[in-house]
Amino acid sequence: MLTLHHLNDSRSQRILWLLEELGTPYEMRRYQRDVETRLAPPELKEVHPLGKSPVITDGDRTIAESGAIVDYIIRSYGKDAMMPPPGSADYEAYNEWLHYAEGSAMLPLMLNLYVGRLKEAGAPLHPRIDSELANHLGYVDRALQGREFFVGASLTGADIQMSFVGEMAKVFGRLGPYRNLAAWLERMHARPAFQRSVAKGGPYRFA
Amino acid sequence: MLTLHHLNDSRSQRILWLLEELGTPYEMRRYQRDVETRLAPPELKEVHPLGKSPVITDGDRTIAESGAIVDYIIRSYGKDAMMPPPGSADYEAYNEWLHYAEGSAMLPLMLNLYVGRLKEAGAPLHPRIDSELANHLGYVDRALQGREFFVGASLTGADIQMSFVGEMAKVFGRLGPYRNLAAWLERMHARPAFQRSVAKGGPYRFA
Repeated sequence: MLTLHHLNDSRSQRILWLLEELGTPYEMRRYQRDVETRLAPPELKEVHPLGKSPVITDGDRTIAESGAIVDYIIRSYGKDAMMPPPGSADYEAYNEWLHYAEGSAMLPLMLNLYVGRLKEAGAPLHPRIDSELANHLGYVDRALQGREFFVGASLTGADIQMSFVGEMAKVFGRLGPYRNLAAWLERMHARPAFQRSVAKGGPYRFA
Repeated sequence: MLTLHHLNDSRSQRILWLLEELGTPYEMRRYQRDVETRLAPPELKEVHPLGKSPVITDGDRTIAESGAIVDYIIRSYGKDAMMPPPGSADYEAYNEWLHYAEGSAMLPLMLNLYVGRLKEAGAPLHPRIDSELANHLGYVDRALQGREFFVGASLTGADIQMSFVGEMAKVFGRLGPYRNLAAWLERMHARPAFQRSVAKGGPYRFA
């Protein structure tokens, strides 16, 4: 049985959402952030040496890293749903979004988070952070122009993987100019499977 | 014909290296960073709206994002080399490294780069950056214990994708405690295909 090691208010929310979309049987073990430091608890290091979430175990396999987990679950349990056929042009776009979310789009958002803690002292970095946020969020927003989903005509792992980018942009108050992205995020959060994932995973501050 | 849009001193060096390892026919277009700002030139926006490198074009396909490009090239042109068989346990480890490099390991390195520009004003962030660097570089170093390559017994895309992590750690003077990682990086840089990639791509400050 696949086990999701779920940390509250984290990237593992999207794995829980994916499992609910697919109807894959799974077990969930819940971990809570330290209330003061917001760091993951040390128990997660017993699952994977990085001590982070999401991480899944499935038989003798342990897989960390959101993009790799989304890809693994859809390939293994998706029954050809939620991904374009391998070899198609859509497949390459799909795979690019899987990598792009954490590989590129999250960097300016995480810089904004960390450098924001410096208050005024971080001011010299904000022009660059802001221009990168505009570059990435503008790109994502244009990619969603006239589209309901990132790839093809139905929900795929690309939507799942990109959800955290939309959520962080929203949390930081950066969604304003990006109406396609904002509307897409609302559609995703309205999905019954997403709602179930919040009901089962516990409060999610980014929903 | 596959075209690599190559920016000097950038993540596209690893794509050039990959193409040399595989012996895949390719064309290269070279782009130079602005000498003062170190930013990519605006011409790259004509290839892909993000204006970044690496980016490849192959027929009517344009693919950005290192992990997606490495995966695409090996699947399309690797003739079963440089990746474990799909479905094997090694395949999942391989895919995890493809995602992990940019999805997780690069974040503390990029934070270190950006926050370092603040000099003393960035000091409050360095304990956290340093602990995340130790977490990730320690993990990578232990993964290489007793191994010549990240996955299996020969070079794969995981080594290509992780090379930039090793190079940035080296540039920031952080490799010292991580002897397995340092030795692996030396082995990678000594490979004839890597040497050819530097000869063809132009000076690479991270080699």
